[in-house]
Amino acid sequence: MTDKSVFPDPVYKRTVLAPLFEGVKAHYASHMGAINRAHLVMLVETRVLSAADGAQIAGALQMIERETDVAALEYTGEFEDYFFYVEAELRRRLGDLGGALHTARSRNDMDHTLFKMALRGLAEALLESLLDLSDALTKKAEIEARTLIVAYTHGQPAQPTTFGHYLGAMIEVLNRDAERLSVAIDGLGHCPMGAAAITTSGFPIDRARMAELLGFEAPLMNSYGCIASVDYVTGLYSAMKLVFLHLGRVVQDMAFWSSFEVGQLYVPNSLVQISSIMPQKRNPVPIEHMRHLSSVTVGRCDMVVNTMHNTPFTDMNDSEGEVQQAGYAAFESGARVIELLTAFLPACSINSDNVKRNTDAACITVTELADTLVRDEALSFRQAHEVAAGTARSVIEQNAPLGDGYQAFKAAFLSIAGRTTSMSEAGFRQATSAENFVAVRNRIGGPAPEALADALAQYRGATKALRDKHAVRSDRTAAASQRLESAFTSLLET
Amino acid sequence: MTDKSVFPDPVYKRTVLAPLFEGVKAHYASHMGAINRAHLVMLVETRVLSAADGAQIAGALQMIERETDVAALEYTGEFEDYFFYVEAELRRRLGDLGGALHTARSRNDMDHTLFKMALRGLAEALLESLLDLSDALTKKAEIEARTLIVAYTHGQPAQPTTFGHYLGAMIEVLNRDAERLSVAIDGLGHCPMGAAAITTSGFPIDRARMAELLGFEAPLMNSYGCIASVDYVTGLYSAMKLVFLHLGRVVQDMAFWSSFEVGQLYVPNSLVQISSIMPQKRNPVPIEHMRHLSSVTVGRCDMVVNTMHNTPFTDMNDSEGEVQQAGYAAFESGARVIELLTAFLPACSINSDNVKRNTDAACITVTELADTLVRDEALSFRQAHEVAAGTARSVIEQNAPLGDGYQAFKAAFLSIAGRTTSMSEAGFRQATSAENFVAVRNRIGGPAPEALADALAQYRGATKALRDKHAVRSDRTAAASQRLESAFTSLLET
Amino acid sequence: MTDKSVFPDPVYKRTVLAPLFEGVKAHYASHMGAINRAHLVMLVETRVLSAADGAQIAGALQMIERETDVAALEYTGEFEDYFFYVEAELRRRLGDLGGALHTARSRNDMDHTLFKMALRGLAEALLESLLDLSDALTKKAEIEARTLIVAYTHGQPAQPTTFGHYLGAMIEVLNRDAERLSVAIDGLGHCPMGAAAITTSGFPIDRARMAELLGFEAPLMNSYGCIASVDYVTGLYSAMKLVFLHLGRVVQDMAFWSSFEVGQLYVPNSLVQISSIMPQKRNPVPIEHMRHLSSVTVGRCDMVVNTMHNTPFTDMNDSEGEVQQAGYAAFESGARVIELLTAFLPACSINSDNVKRNTDAACITVTELADTLVRDEALSFRQAHEVAAGTARSVIEQNAPLGDGYQAFKAAFLSIAGRTTSMSEAGFRQATSAENFVAVRNRIGGPAPEALADALAQYRGATKALRDKHAVRSDRTAAASQRLESAFTSLLET
Amino acid sequence: MTDKSVFPDPVYKRTVLAPLFEGVKAHYASHMGAINRAHLVMLVETRVLSAADGAQIAGALQMIERETDVAALEYTGEFEDYFFYVEAELRRRLGDLGGALHTARSRNDMDHTLFKMALRGLAEALLESLLDLSDALTKKAEIEARTLIVAYTHGQPAQPTTFGHYLGAMIEVLNRDAERLSVAIDGLGHCPMGAAAITTSGFPIDRARMAELLGFEAPLMNSYGCIASVDYVTGLYSAMKLVFLHLGRVVQDMAFWSSFEVGQLYVPNSLVQISSIMPQKRNPVPIEHMRHLSSVTVGRCDMVVNTMHNTPFTDMNDSEGEVQQAGYAAFESGARVIELLTAFLPACSINSDNVKRNTDAACITVTELADTLVRDEALSFRQAHEVAAGTARSVIEQNAPLGDGYQAFKAAFLSIAGRTTSMSEAGFRQATSAENFVAVRNRIGGPAPEALADALAQYRGATKALRDKHAVRSDRTAAASQRLESAFTSLLET
Repeated sequence: MTDKSVFPDPVYKRTVLAPLFEGVKAHYASHMGAINRAHLVMLVETRVLSAADGAQIAGALQMIERETDVAALEYTGEFEDYFFYVEAELRRRLGDLGGALHTARSRNDMDHTLFKMALRGLAEALLESLLDLSDALTKKAEIEARTLIVAYTHGQPAQPTTFGHYLGAMIEVLNRDAERLSVAIDGLGHCPMGAAAITTSGFPIDRARMAELLGFEAPLMNSYGCIASVDYVTGLYSAMKLVFLHLGRVVQDMAFWSSFEVGQLYVPNSLVQISSIMPQKRNPVPIEHMRHLSSVTVGRCDMVVNTMHNTPFTDMNDSEGEVQQAGYAAFESGARVIELLTAFLPACSINSDNVKRNTDAACITVTELADTLVRDEALSFRQAHEVAAGTARSVIEQNAPLGDGYQAFKAAFLSIAGRTTSMSEAGFRQATSAENFVAVRNRIGGPAPEALADALAQYRGATKALRDKHAVRSDRTAAASQRLESAFTSLLET
Repeated sequence: MTDKSVFPDPVYKRTVLAPLFEGVKAHYASHMGAINRAHLVMLVETRVLSAADGAQIAGALQMIERETDVAALEYTGEFEDYFFYVEAELRRRLGDLGGALHTARSRNDMDHTLFKMALRGLAEALLESLLDLSDALTKKAEIEARTLIVAYTHGQPAQPTTFGHYLGAMIEVLNRDAERLSVAIDGLGHCPMGAAAITTSGFPIDRARMAELLGFEAPLMNSYGCIASVDYVTGLYSAMKLVFLHLGRVVQDMAFWSSFEVGQLYVPNSLVQISSIMPQKRNPVPIEHMRHLSSVTVGRCDMVVNTMHNTPFTDMNDSEGEVQQAGYAAFESGARVIELLTAFLPACSINSDNVKRNTDAACITVTELADTLVRDEALSFRQAHEVAAGTARSVIEQNAPLGDGYQAFKAAFLSIAGRTTSMSEAGFRQATSAENFVAVRNRIGGPAPEALADALAQYRGATKALRDKHAVRSDRTAAASQRLESAFTSLLET
Repeated sequence: MTDKSVFPDPVYKRTVLAPLFEGVKAHYASHMGAINRAHLVMLVETRVLSAADGAQIAGALQMIERETDVAALEYTGEFEDYFFYVEAELRRRLGDLGGALHTARSRNDMDHTLFKMALRGLAEALLESLLDLSDALTKKAEIEARTLIVAYTHGQPAQPTTFGHYLGAMIEVLNRDAERLSVAIDGLGHCPMGAAAITTSGFPIDRARMAELLGFEAPLMNSYGCIASVDYVTGLYSAMKLVFLHLGRVVQDMAFWSSFEVGQLYVPNSLVQISSIMPQKRNPVPIEHMRHLSSVTVGRCDMVVNTMHNTPFTDMNDSEGEVQQAGYAAFESGARVIELLTAFLPACSINSDNVKRNTDAACITVTELADTLVRDEALSFRQAHEVAAGTARSVIEQNAPLGDGYQAFKAAFLSIAGRTTSMSEAGFRQATSAENFVAVRNRIGGPAPEALADALAQYRGATKALRDKHAVRSDRTAAASQRLESAFTSLLET
Repeated sequence: MTDKSVFPDPVYKRTVLAPLFEGVKAHYASHMGAINRAHLVMLVETRVLSAADGAQIAGALQMIERETDVAALEYTGEFEDYFFYVEAELRRRLGDLGGALHTARSRNDMDHTLFKMALRGLAEALLESLLDLSDALTKKAEIEARTLIVAYTHGQPAQPTTFGHYLGAMIEVLNRDAERLSVAIDGLGHCPMGAAAITTSGFPIDRARMAELLGFEAPLMNSYGCIASVDYVTGLYSAMKLVFLHLGRVVQDMAFWSSFEVGQLYVPNSLVQISSIMPQKRNPVPIEHMRHLSSVTVGRCDMVVNTMHNTPFTDMNDSEGEVQQAGYAAFESGARVIELLTAFLPACSINSDNVKRNTDAACITVTELADTLVRDEALSFRQAHEVAAGTARSVIEQNAPLGDGYQAFKAAFLSIAGRTTSMSEAGFRQATSAENFVAVRNRIGGPAPEALADALAQYRGATKALRDKHAVRSDRTAAASQRLESAFTSLLET
């Protein structure tokens, strides 16, 4: 059997090679430039290449970069991929020497280095937007520290609390999500360069220097792992999934709160779609978009992670270009959710009339009345409970708010405790008011404004700490760029 | 609180409305044109609109279509979406009458009609490509009906069979997948038009006529379900997921077969990437791309289906524009896998030298020797088994193929059966040959060429039947287009 | 290197072999008995075994079955698995002949046959429960054919319809899910027996007879596919996932409807949890359990399907015992959801006071007023729209139901149409009533009682058709059992 | 409409309440005892209850615990759940006072506290087993530091490395997985007690003391978040999923390595299943079981996480009993994978004959020959490359190992470099030996034994650090138990 076929098969070119080439153009060309420059600097520093050779190659790299309009390149199949295109350009200019740049490296270590560089940009931007959201919510929580809302269980009004307190719960999850994301970003901080194809190289390369020049914290140790381990990908997308899984849950609350009958959340005109014929119908459509955009983002994260399932550990390219780029769509949709939510929630307000209506209709402060009777009237729990329940039944029959039920309360007290209550009508009104309900809950993490203020201070501290870590990483990357620029320029000037 | 904000909020415009507008332009504008024309025809036919009004609106629709370069439209926020843009154009031309086209319909029923029209195009194309793949494999299986391969269990050579037989197993799954897909496509065949917002209309509309004009099989019955049920989406993407889940498994076999040491599958030069320095290294990279592209496609299908999880049944838009369009990426990557595989597998061949080497080294025909002894020499199963195993041990010690082990066989037979075998050396050679192993397995679904030929005829019948169904659907759609065109033209000519 | 280790390693025994043995005891022992009997019958019928040998083996099988308390067996490691345990028992009784039962078969074809037999039992039971649910809902829909509810879009009241109409939408999805499940069950109907290890056998076995004796429709054709293809598993669990994904969406509606403020769905005392102190608080907790049990069921289906991802096509046991049994948990939780929902929904009722309150507060019949003006007063769409909207604005200002707004309507009409309306107050009341809104929507799939009655009749037809198919399958299985019993008894009597 | 139905409906009891009760019995009864004791201690310490009342309640709790055989309890429906059962027992003994224990708490905060206590036990055990696996692999890597293997890319032999080096790559991932798991366990360290139903309490409770008595690091701050946030669940199962996703990838390598033709991994007899008739067939079945058990574990983790999708943030019980318990199955299957792998990998060895055969057949050291020529003979890269490739082509033609190709090398060198090589035959043999290939790769993370030794020391440090953190948490829990025991005993002695 003679095989006269010639690479690449046109179908393969069309279905794989050309799309990959477009992907490299869009996402990696500049990172590949940085890797080329850094690797050259390192090869000269370690004397694998002479300074003279280094200067020549540096000059050629610079020329290629200047003369190439990457966006305009079209895939022809002449070179297998963009990497080979650059190498061919080097050889065209330098002859044999053009191949020397590829000493002690491989597309394997280069690829995962590129992917990490691209991902860190995307992930840091996501992290920043999360921290911005968190701070916006903290600010909003401060404003809404005394704004009463109804808290629900089983779809039924259960207790009063404040919008600020609710936002606090949300902020805590968000901050932990940001923390998880930050840890996952740290997982991008180790440089594969120097692993070469699999096993490092017999040339005396300096992996630490490569890491430094490319803005990484350190080399990723085991060289086989540099090209085989994908937990930088799975760890990142897993952490990211949780962000949107959790945000999607908040969206469900907003949907319920903004429903016509509940009416607890007021969405401003700029964010509702109205009907010209149904004057009551204000459709808070952004909420719906945030839900499905969150779901889509979750699904895209899953797609990347699950693609790694049952792949061989050390021999696969399921974590490479195509899959990496498919994953970027998650950042795109995710960014839209965050941006929209950051605008949306601070723009909304609580409809306090509706909150009061629902609070009253459901007698949701009655448990505090019972607690008060235990503390102030020394009733047993059972007695306090019975007095409170009796009072509630009466006011509901009369279709009145609990605070108006003093007479009913006095009667119930007398009947159950066998004596007259010492509580005044004003005291009763206070014991059954939502404001008091909140005010007495001044425990760690409770809704009382003081407790909330303490919490908000802590949340600010948490985002500050994450911002500091982010800054350290960004500074490292920026410093590395400068260091690389200057080292490369020195080569040129040799 | 006065709310002076004005729709749309710029963030909402940027993150949601503008992307949605782009999506409509890319995917739905022409379908929306068809719906507009069909609805107008139906309104005139049912006398909801007079012929004169119908003619005016038809003329305006035609002008708008002629004058609008959809691709060039930019989202300004002046109109909420593309639908309102068209309506505004109608009103600009016709005044009040422009609004009449929207009688007895809603964006709700229109949207799901659009989505179904778009999906049926994508899904039918996918189905066709699957049937093409199936037929290509059947043709290949016919060619390879006598080409021996090693069948593995637990990573160990287990039995000989033919490449054709293997492909038959694959074709059966593929045909069942195509059948599942075809059933799911039937699930796109019911038209939501006439459901209007939720409950149909008080106007005497004709839902059956709308279905007919738009190429559907019939109206989807329950009008609430028309806008709420999403199983046309989940059913389709579930069926589609299985296609790629199953193809990905075949890819795993190809990876193993094409590994250097196994070497059973020969991938032609046009589809391998070579190394200039390692002459043995022929990297069948397309296999790897088919694996991860299949996984990505699976993940994209999951994304769509799982987005529906825990959404309300009757009040959500998680199945609308954004999510629909996110799903189209699955068709894009899926199409590439199918196209590549359809080129790849027929281009590959079996390396018979390697098959023979592995067959011999592992004595994989020895079970047929035992079976033959039971049938021809009337040994008990235990005896036959012992003779065969003894023979195998000997040839393996001598590093010889089983077929060369006649002497060892004779000795084992004598020792265990207590008599001389009546089997000749030629008979022994036959009994232990892979060709014979296959030939005697002439049972339903077995690898013997006759049995396989029967099977292949059936597979051809199965794809033929699916093609026929596909043709019925395509013809229905094409006929509907013509019918609509002619009915609309009649309106114009009134 | 000498390897003196002996199978089985104690850790392997503990972590894999013993759990597998327990699984076989719990799920497959009786099916394996049936396979043994059927295979023996077939071997004698095809004369692979003599009648005398068949009789002996039959007797031994009967004795083993009588003497073995399967539930009491403990895994010792002496035999690799339950299959070998039975074979050893046969040999203990019959000597060499004991091995003859295993002629022309393998654990490979037996296993997938067992799995299909176990799955068809589970899946048929699930299907029956779905059909029962569907019929229960159809009955409920008939009862509630005139019970008004509010239909929501974007969380806002949008239109009146009936509970019966809503249930119709649900039933349609359920019936299509049942149809998908039924198709998937058909996918269990092809028998792998005769595939033996991979390639069928040189013995003249009768695969069709095996299929018949074990209650299958026919043999599964390609023998390699018999042991490699897993789409009977993935197809079934995919179809099943959709059932619970879709039911979970209905649960979300129920949660919203039963919330305190909406109050559209009344859940009876037997299904709510109350609070002794908060008299308003009726917690419809079963709804919440149905949601998460549905999600868990969905997740378990996904687990099984996704386990197949990236497994080799023809060499894996990822579809075998452990995974099969892990999947059964999906049937367990799923059955609970269906049973609970079948009790729950018919026990609930609509709180018509709340429906009326919400209907009135949101003016949701106003669009029908506009439509009526177009039809009866020949207003243009714009004018009708303006009159209706003006009327709505007035009544909302007055906090009155739309039906009380005749004066406002007359004024609006005069001002916009420039004439006095000919509509009487009674006509206005009718045009704005929810009952009329529903009654005029007597289109295919609309909520008008006649239209709904037509639909319900069709739904009953659909479940009837599925029950008939189910009965055909059940009858086939039952007939096969009898046929097998009698053929086996004949062997014994030889 | 009068509702005379009575809670609980028998179907609800059967499908939900009884299974929940069984779950509490199996998993939470003892944790609930601890919470009861701690809460009582705290109430007395904060003087919410008097010492005398505290002593009475403590006595009753002790009696109940002594007299109740939890395992023997059967669910009757008399009490809604186990919590109410205990409360009823308290009231039976103490009258009204029995209710006092429930002051300032709720089943809401209790439930999530229980779940965290149960999960931390499971997760710490998993973590310990991972660290044991890691240390076992480090020990194995030390033993195999010089054991050559073939490293593959694209299914083709690519380079030599050592088994120790390979294991190092695996250990790094495992250690990062353990780190992620440890971080997730830290996420279980914050106590919800004191959140009560939602908003803490008006009673002067001490949340920090509760956390301390129950072995938590601190209270979880926001009280609404205490009952609403589920990231302790999603974070844990996400981290856990990655463990098994990544282990499953190693399993794929083992499957390939242990295949007959590759034969690189030798699995001992105690872990292979043999065939009596096919002497070559040694089936390493444990590998297959590890793959699907890993997949099942991954799927179970996904099930839990995805159940949270689209649930409301603050009003749901999708993270409660049923779902928690469904998740425990992931720990069960996961533990089996880890235990088996920890026994399996150290028991395996490398078949060095096969490694040598594959190494030679594929010329995988040829790149090092080229590198050597650059370094020692000062050839240009192109020249070195051509000489090496020419040599490889020759030896492959002769079917000889590269090391035997000195003559071919000399010829190629002369022809390309135009001079005689100064490399001796011994030098050539060394330059092309796999041992040398490894030895010169003494870079950070490279396979040379010294580099590997450095790495292994670091890995040991990493597991040590994780063990230390684990110990801190375990000590905290143990100390808390003692503290609680002694505080509770003091109450009794009041």
